Amino acid sequence: MTNPTAAMLVIGDEILSGRTRDSNMHFLARQLTERGIMLGEVRIVSDDRERIVAALNDLRAGHDHVFTSGGIGPTHDDITADAVAAAFGVGLDIREDARAILAEHYTRTGLELNAARLRMARIPEGADLIENPVSAAPGFTLGNVHVMAGVPAVFEAMVASVLPRIAGGQALYSQSLTIQRGEGEIAADLATLAAEYPALSIGCYPFQRDGAFGATVVVRGVEKSAVDSALLRLSALFPEATA
Amino acid sequence: MTNPTAAMLVIGDEILSGRTRDSNMHFLARQLTERGIMLGEVRIVSDDRERIVAALNDLRAGHDHVFTSGGIGPTHDDITADAVAAAFGVGLDIREDARAILAEHYTRTGLELNAARLRMARIPEGADLIENPVSAAPGFTLGNVHVMAGVPAVFEAMVASVLPRIAGGQALYSQSLTIQRGEGEIAADLATLAAEYPALSIGCYPFQRDGAFGATVVVRGVEKSAVDSALLRLSALFPEATA
Repeated sequence: MTNPTAAMLVIGDEILSGRTRDSNMHFLARQLTERGIMLGEVRIVSDDRERIVAALNDLRAGHDHVFTSGGIGPTHDDITADAVAAAFGVGLDIREDARAILAEHYTRTGLELNAARLRMARIPEGADLIENPVSAAPGFTLGNVHVMAGVPAVFEAMVASVLPRIAGGQALYSQSLTIQRGEGEIAADLATLAAEYPALSIGCYPFQRDGAFGATVVVRGVEKSAVDSALLRLSALFPEATA
Repeated sequence: MTNPTAAMLVIGDEILSGRTRDSNMHFLARQLTERGIMLGEVRIVSDDRERIVAALNDLRAGHDHVFTSGGIGPTHDDITADAVAAAFGVGLDIREDARAILAEHYTRTGLELNAARLRMARIPEGADLIENPVSAAPGFTLGNVHVMAGVPAVFEAMVASVLPRIAGGQALYSQSLTIQRGEGEIAADLATLAAEYPALSIGCYPFQRDGAFGATVVVRGVEKSAVDSALLRLSALFPEATA
């Protein structure tokens, strides 16, 4: 069995200008990994319709799922729904079930469902709504593309609404060891180990701490016994390594 | 004058698996914005040669500069230099000036320049080295692609080595106001303002704090007088806004 693959498209000038530090990508990456869905690529593009359409069409063709973050609010720079409709070549209009969700929410909170807010009920033809328990305005799934808000609390709630609908894969089992030596000291042994265990992913992640170089070696795989066996070999090769 | 554009390519399974949270993108975004270089797109891909080559060729064709992060260490999963050489269709071999830098560093630190470490002297034909004052092993610039390490301290030092060589653009002047109202309340006025000031970028970034929704409006442009004038209009429209 092959694990499903995913890509993420983050839409937002504020990330690219360095004004905001993205947190949605890290959140989604962890959620997908837990479910055995392999996040293969992330793209961050500006609030530009052509670029969003091009990236969406590229990503949805190459992955089982695409998750987007950002650009579905009520303001003039929120153009993600338009871009998704254009990418799929379908219409975009206010949908009654989405309007009803907004009307109920704004009545309850005593705010006006004005023209700007009503933009958030514009849903591409054929999409399914994604529930937003935080601020009501729904996301949507069209084909294999899941369109979600950028505000982290809302994004996270929408991910929680979407993931149970999606088939996961075999969870990857992973173990890691940290070695207080530079990568260059351990690279040859790691390469040998990687060749011996072709079904495992053996990654080496260097770091610098208190002026000294070290490396964390992460071994991942579907078979727990293979991962454990590789870990034993690693521990024998580097007796000073710590879990 | 048009500001130069840039893209970033982050290479690393550890970001996509959620194990590590990227910080290089946020760092680079801020550095570029300060210099008037517009970061237009970021891609994060796994340690897969085909994907790195495809992303590099896409990005270098569409931007004045491409900055890469990750995958130039001594281990078997460090394949960025190979991928860059393949993308440009040039050879890759150990280069004497790079080997000399490593030899000097390892002699000084009392470590062996073994075969794994020597991989870091493999530089694509025609590239210029990027100085690495932290751990010696150089990055390189080939055409409009600047190839740097993933360890944040090293990445940041390499960015500092590269940026003075690159022509910046007119710095963007930006001002922001924070309004304690949901985006939907202010969207119509913002759209009007954006239409009145077509040369400015007016972004609206919603947030949720202590259960209440608010929005930060950021106005950016090359002309300080235009940005200031739009800010005055904003303050008049939303007297309760804070800087």
